[in-house]
Formats: sequence, C-alpha cells, structure tokens
Amino acid sequence: MSVVYNRVALIGLGLIASSMYWAIKRAGVAVEVTGYARSEQTRETARRIGLCDVVCDSAVEAVKDADLVVLCVPVGVMGAVAADIAPHLKDGCTVSDVGSVKKSVIEAIAPHLPEGVHFVPAHPMAGTEHSGPESGFDTLFDNRWCLIVPNGADEAATERLETFWQALGANCERMDVEHHDQVCAVVSHIPHLIAYTMVGVADDLRRVSEREVIKFSAAGFRDFTRIAASDPTMWRDVFLTNKEATLEILGRFTEELFALQRSIRTGDGDQLFDYFTRTRAIRRGIIEAGQDTEAPDFGRGKPQ
Amino acid sequence: MSVVYNRVALIGLGLIASSMYWAIKRAGVAVEVTGYARSEQTRETARRIGLCDVVCDSAVEAVKDADLVVLCVPVGVMGAVAADIAPHLKDGCTVSDVGSVKKSVIEAIAPHLPEGVHFVPAHPMAGTEHSGPESGFDTLFDNRWCLIVPNGADEAATERLETFWQALGANCERMDVEHHDQVCAVVSHIPHLIAYTMVGVADDLRRVSEREVIKFSAAGFRDFTRIAASDPTMWRDVFLTNKEATLEILGRFTEELFALQRSIRTGDGDQLFDYFTRTRAIRRGIIEAGQDTEAPDFGRGKPQ
Repeated sequence: MSVVYNRVALIGLGLIASSMYWAIKRAGVAVEVTGYARSEQTRETARRIGLCDVVCDSAVEAVKDADLVVLCVPVGVMGAVAADIAPHLKDGCTVSDVGSVKKSVIEAIAPHLPEGVHFVPAHPMAGTEHSGPESGFDTLFDNRWCLIVPNGADEAATERLETFWQALGANCERMDVEHHDQVCAVVSHIPHLIAYTMVGVADDLRRVSEREVIKFSAAGFRDFTRIAASDPTMWRDVFLTNKEATLEILGRFTEELFALQRSIRTGDGDQLFDYFTRTRAIRRGIIEAGQDTEAPDFGRGKPQ
Repeated sequence: MSVVYNRVALIGLGLIASSMYWAIKRAGVAVEVTGYARSEQTRETARRIGLCDVVCDSAVEAVKDADLVVLCVPVGVMGAVAADIAPHLKDGCTVSDVGSVKKSVIEAIAPHLPEGVHFVPAHPMAGTEHSGPESGFDTLFDNRWCLIVPNGADEAATERLETFWQALGANCERMDVEHHDQVCAVVSHIPHLIAYTMVGVADDLRRVSEREVIKFSAAGFRDFTRIAASDPTMWRDVFLTNKEATLEILGRFTEELFALQRSIRTGDGDQLFDYFTRTRAIRRGIIEAGQDTEAPDFGRGKPQ
C-alpha cells in the first residue's frame, strides 16, 4: 500500500481514532500520525501505549503541516475544535470527521474553515461498546462501511479520502447529507435509544430485581445491553443533533409497537405471526451481506 | 454421571428438544430417549440424523413406559398434547415442559394429568435464533438457567428433575408461577417484541431502502435482528399467553421511551446523558455474571 497522506492528525483519541491509528500503521498509508486529546490523562495513556507517532499537547500543534486532519471528538464539540484549529491548517489540506450525524456537524464545522481547505465529512460505521484510547484495534473498519458525505467538496480530495478509508479496510459509499442522517436514524440511532430504554426499564422495576435481570439476561435482554453500554457523551450529542430524523423514526416505531400491543391485547395471533415471520427475511439478508455470521448466538464462545 | 431417568420421552423435536437429546447423550442421564414430532418431515429428519434412540409415529407410543415426559411443543398446543397422552402415562412418572410462559401452560396441562403423575413445569432459558430438529447442539444449556416452577409438585420428583437439568449443563432456580412470568416478560418477551418491532419498522420505510438497512446494519440495528429471527409460532404463543405481564412491562417501556423522546425534543442533554450512563452498569453486571463475554462486538469473528 502506498502513502495517501504524508501527515495525518487525529483530534480526539477514543475508540475510532485509536482504531484509525492502528489501521493506518497496518496499511502504511501515512508517514506520520499526530494525535491530540483534551484530557491530559488520555494523552498520557496514548504516549504509554504508543498510540500515535507524536502526541501533542494542543490541537493547534497537532494539525501543523497535516495533509489530513480528522476530527474524532463528540459531535457536540466539533464546532469549537474546528474554530480552534482553523487558522493553523495547512493550505490545501483536507479536514474530515467521523461524526455519526452529518447535517449539524457540517453546519458546525464548515463556517470556520478557510478557503483552500477541503472539507470532506465522513462517517465510519463501526464501533464497539468500549470507548477510550485503549479500546481501538486495527481491524475495526474491515468490511465495514464508511459513508462519505462530500456535500460539494472537491472531487480529487474526496477520492483521496476514499482511498485512505479503503486502505483502512472500509468500503466507501457516498451519500447526501439528509439521507445520511435518515439512514443512520434507522440503522443506528433509534436502535441505540431503544436499547437504552429497555435496559433502563429493567433497571427500574421493583418486582423483578436487578440480580434477576442480570442472571437471566441470556434470554434476549442481553442483546440490548451491548449497545446500551456505548459512550454516553457520544450518544447524547447524536440525539441532540439528529433530532428531526430520530423523532420521525421514533414516531414510526411507537406506531408499530402500539399496533402489536393491540394485537396482544385483543389476542390477534394471526397478526402477530405474520409480523414475526416477515422480520426473519431481513436477518437472512444481513447474513448474506456478510454483516454478521450465521453461527447461533452470534458465534459467541461458551461463557466462562 | 449416573442415570437419572431410565426412559425419557421428548414430545416435539425443535431446537430445545434436539439440544436436550444431544445433552442427555453427552451426560448419560437416560438409558433410552424416545421422540415424537407432529410433522412427518420432522420425524424423517430426526431418524436421518440419529436424533432420539427411537422416533415414534405418535405421542402416545413415545410416552409409553417413560419415566420423564417433556413437552417441547409451542405453548399454544401444550393442552392438546397433554390431553392426548394423559391416559397413556406410566404411573409415578414425571411430566415436564419447556414453555416460556408458566401460568397458562400449567392451566392448560394440569387438568388433564391423572393422579400419580408428577407435574413439574420447567423453563430452560436458552436458545438461538434457529429452529427445527437440526438446530440443536449439546452445549446449549451449559451455564444457562433452567427455571423450575414446582407449583406444589412432589419434592422428590422436583429434585430429580433438577438433577436431570444440572446434568444437561444448566443451573436450576425455583420460582413461583407469577414471578416467573414477570421476570420472563422483562428479560425475554418484551426484548423480543421490541426487536421484532424495530426490524419491522426498518423493513417498512420508504425513504430508506431495505438494501441500505441490511448493508449498514452493523451500526446497531444488527443486534436486534438476531432475536427478531426467532420462531414466529413460539413467539406468537408467548404473547397470547403471557398477555398480562407483557402488557404491563410494555406500558413501562413506552412511558420511558416517551420521556427520552421528550428530552430529545426539548434538547435536555443532561437527562439523556444521565440515562445513558446508568445503563452501562447493567452491562458490567452481565459480563461479571458470565452471561456474556467482554470481547468487543460479542467476540464475533471477522465477517467473510
């Protein structure tokens, strides 16, 4: 693999940035990677585990001479970081991000960037329930999708960013801003909100103890707890900034849920059976698309 | 391991019964296991793959001389099967079941059973999204819970059934009927209903294509699709027969969901952050209890 960007700066050193660093090293697509995190403790951890070639004490220092700057911070602080680094960006460099929401992130970042800097928003759709600088690994993006939302960006700069993400293992797809936020509300944001809610309800019941919920979780509940253990700051910002699309999908969800609730109340077995049959086909599609394995129980090993 | 029951009859040959058969063989807890399924095709498959020592052409034949009869049929047909076999049960034998609901199953089975037969309801809380005679495997119950709901059954017969399930790899816990149905509504029934709903909503949207939902499913949605691929007959019967508890928990769920929806609408980030933080602790508890692994992404292998 040849070098795509001479110097890459990663701002924010959590799960995504740390995985990017290890994947960049695996692929050899950058000569030098600088990193910055707001928390001193995170910077210390990064230095200790060799995360980034240079860990800088300011974002301004990290972006100096960078050909690609990737903002890997929570969606809610993207604008402030962009304002901070903007005067120090190299002419002709590309600025990108990894935010789960695109409309509000673009609105937050774009106004700060000077002429001559290419802004190519991106969203690698990969993650685990872990967070922080030590949670990254070099295969996180393999065979996952990275959505590229050029929003009018320079074509050469966009293609270069796509080459970069492909080298990190991802498949790229371009999408427009509104559609991106809609798709993500369905496949990611609302599933997370529902999982959080289910776990919250279970935590809150008086007649069924938390001990019981944990003990008997393998019966279905457990599948919700993984995504409900995701980073709270990241998810708070997602819902605050993708309000319109999440509220719309949420409306559809409660509508369907009420229809099923009604079928339960009235004892309409045919309606329930038909609904439960229809949903099986989607699972089959996901396995065929290589986005999960067919192994029962997620191919999970025997618990200890 | 010594023999617990001389002869065991498994009525219904799906995921649970087939897993029980292989686990019985692994443990050597029965001398002979007979099996029966209503569908001729299932019986043929069972004979072909060596599932059960003898596959019978009627339930009546299968239960003859059995010391333990386990009803492994959907909850909705338990009563009919019990009525069918009742006159042919050996005096002093134990009848049990594997239903996910206990109150209505007991009401359906108990009236048919003759004096001198012990009825000890049970519920092994284990499963995968696959179904049918070929889906079973001998480790399904290892370190999973089998809830025993004696409901006044003979103590010796109850202890014997517990010994049997422990030999199959399960941990046993006794519960009373009402509490069982409540606990299962929380940890199993409502999570399944919600997963089915989420998958149904995604399937139904016009602006986001099914192709996109499948393609980008790794972002959270995928975790719902596994349990939403479970057996439709089984789940229809669960909701029809555990109506009261599922409607109650569903009410709590929508109440919480509306509270979070309101926080999104009003932009109450603190409320969202607090909620998302609280749910992390439960995940930690589940891993500590050995009911899931800490490996990111469920320790799932790299997709093909």
